[in-house]
Amino acid sequence: MRTIKIAILGLGNVGGATSQIILNKKNALADFTGKNIEIKYVLVNDINKKRNWDTENIVITDDFQAILNDAEVEIVAEALGGIHPAYEYMKSCLLAGKHVVTANKAALAHGLKELHQIADEKGLSLLYEASVGGAIPGLTAISIPLCANSFTKVRGILNGTCNYILTMMEREGMEFDQVLKLAQEKGFAEADPTADIEGIDVANKLSILTYLALGTYIPPTQISRQGISHIGMTDIEEAKKDGKRLRLIGEAHINEQGSISCNVGVTALEAEDPLYNVCDEFNAIYVEGDLSGPVMFYGKGAGPFPTGSAVAGDIAQIAKLL
Amino acid sequence: MRTIKIAILGLGNVGGATSQIILNKKNALADFTGKNIEIKYVLVNDINKKRNWDTENIVITDDFQAILNDAEVEIVAEALGGIHPAYEYMKSCLLAGKHVVTANKAALAHGLKELHQIADEKGLSLLYEASVGGAIPGLTAISIPLCANSFTKVRGILNGTCNYILTMMEREGMEFDQVLKLAQEKGFAEADPTADIEGIDVANKLSILTYLALGTYIPPTQISRQGISHIGMTDIEEAKKDGKRLRLIGEAHINEQGSISCNVGVTALEAEDPLYNVCDEFNAIYVEGDLSGPVMFYGKGAGPFPTGSAVAGDIAQIAKLL
Repeated sequence: MRTIKIAILGLGNVGGATSQIILNKKNALADFTGKNIEIKYVLVNDINKKRNWDTENIVITDDFQAILNDAEVEIVAEALGGIHPAYEYMKSCLLAGKHVVTANKAALAHGLKELHQIADEKGLSLLYEASVGGAIPGLTAISIPLCANSFTKVRGILNGTCNYILTMMEREGMEFDQVLKLAQEKGFAEADPTADIEGIDVANKLSILTYLALGTYIPPTQISRQGISHIGMTDIEEAKKDGKRLRLIGEAHINEQGSISCNVGVTALEAEDPLYNVCDEFNAIYVEGDLSGPVMFYGKGAGPFPTGSAVAGDIAQIAKLL
Repeated sequence: MRTIKIAILGLGNVGGATSQIILNKKNALADFTGKNIEIKYVLVNDINKKRNWDTENIVITDDFQAILNDAEVEIVAEALGGIHPAYEYMKSCLLAGKHVVTANKAALAHGLKELHQIADEKGLSLLYEASVGGAIPGLTAISIPLCANSFTKVRGILNGTCNYILTMMEREGMEFDQVLKLAQEKGFAEADPTADIEGIDVANKLSILTYLALGTYIPPTQISRQGISHIGMTDIEEAKKDGKRLRLIGEAHINEQGSISCNVGVTALEAEDPLYNVCDEFNAIYVEGDLSGPVMFYGKGAGPFPTGSAVAGDIAQIAKLL
């Protein structure tokens, strides 16, 4: 059985979970890929930090160039987060002939088109299932089993923090500020929640989904965007009276003129909407294909192991082809 | 660009739609596979029947042996329906070294284990995304992006006819017999609806899902099974009073003893259940992975083009690897 050596950039929540999955699920991954996937390097900021996991033969390094220059490394999984230097690292890896997997929506939405161009020219894989909807296999589904379809619309509930807040406001009658505090205590919201509650995170994910499903790259900065911080209990109650639910929706569709409308904003969903029942921190991705009709995928949009599940799936998908 | 020659067995609803998709979506399929997929043969019962589609260079034949003995044919897509001779044809194709794709849940559930054994021994692909949930990419999702997961539970709304009937009974207050007649008029139910309304079709699909997600083959004849023909308006109303909905659910899970419980029956779903909002003729597949947590897929479970979309996706997935 051939051994595929990989590097993981970052050992935070996602990088740590991905490393554990690659180590602990060796057999399941070998069953699928027919290969032995081996972590050769993990890139960290502080190599002296005490870590309570058995690293076996893995080189823990703070030297990205060492990874880049090691021809044995065939796949690099980027789990650093943030645009820089993650974007530059991915670009360098592709230029060096390495396949790239990432969970990083911000870096991808920033340079998706350029990264794909390099990958295409070099005949390399660039996969990012985890970047939109965490564990939800929406991107692979669009790319492989639905590959014969042309899509006219893609929409989704793409941010778990916002969905948790809107769900709790409706279910418990709590005001926005109260729920945000609770979400922060529960780890569903970050100390600085701006990117989530102002729709920036959803715009990044919608940019990626639009590229994949509708074939056009729209930079997240060009997506019309509204968050949820202006929503009060009166808005929630008003929707409820009509049998509707407020949700932060990212949506892109091909309009009558053939151009693409792309928007992030709060929408009142009717009870019949497939996204209506998506509550708490769950996410969902919805597409309309010319052959398939409407298809929807639902699951956990965040968390170390749901996200690591998708990163490991991408690594396996590439390893199978090698 | 390499040309992959395929044969399609059957030119009914599914075979016809699949043929059209392979012809009309040549470019989309080539973009994904990097190959030119060409239909060499279509197997039919009556070669003299008048058909209003342009068959280009396709050989329309009633001679299965001609297809079997043609070494140029690398992939065979079976769309005959029924157990025999579909099962024997698939077996012969695998033994002859051809990759097999099928939408035929009855033939698969009958001989899934044996077909997979032959495919594994020969290093061939046997794919059947369309056999469970039509266009819904549940099987590929379980197999590829979620490949690192161990699953503990799989359940679903797997029969569009039953779901349409239960939805209409609840929404319109119509009795079972009335809705069945309407469903037959609309083409959602067959003239002989036994396999659908008695849960036989769901047992076939559950057998396939259980094999794929839980790794164990349970013949459909050994699955405890109940249909929907005994359901009356009083049952529907009683569930509704408690805020619940009746749905025909196929479910398999690993129980505390480590063995698998497998069951088809009508269940009252709570409003919070991810399957609660699956109405009309739609289907859904739900799995619980140890890494991903709960994941659900929703879409059209039947119809020529939704089913053909999945068959074409499987053909493309194999062609990409050739």
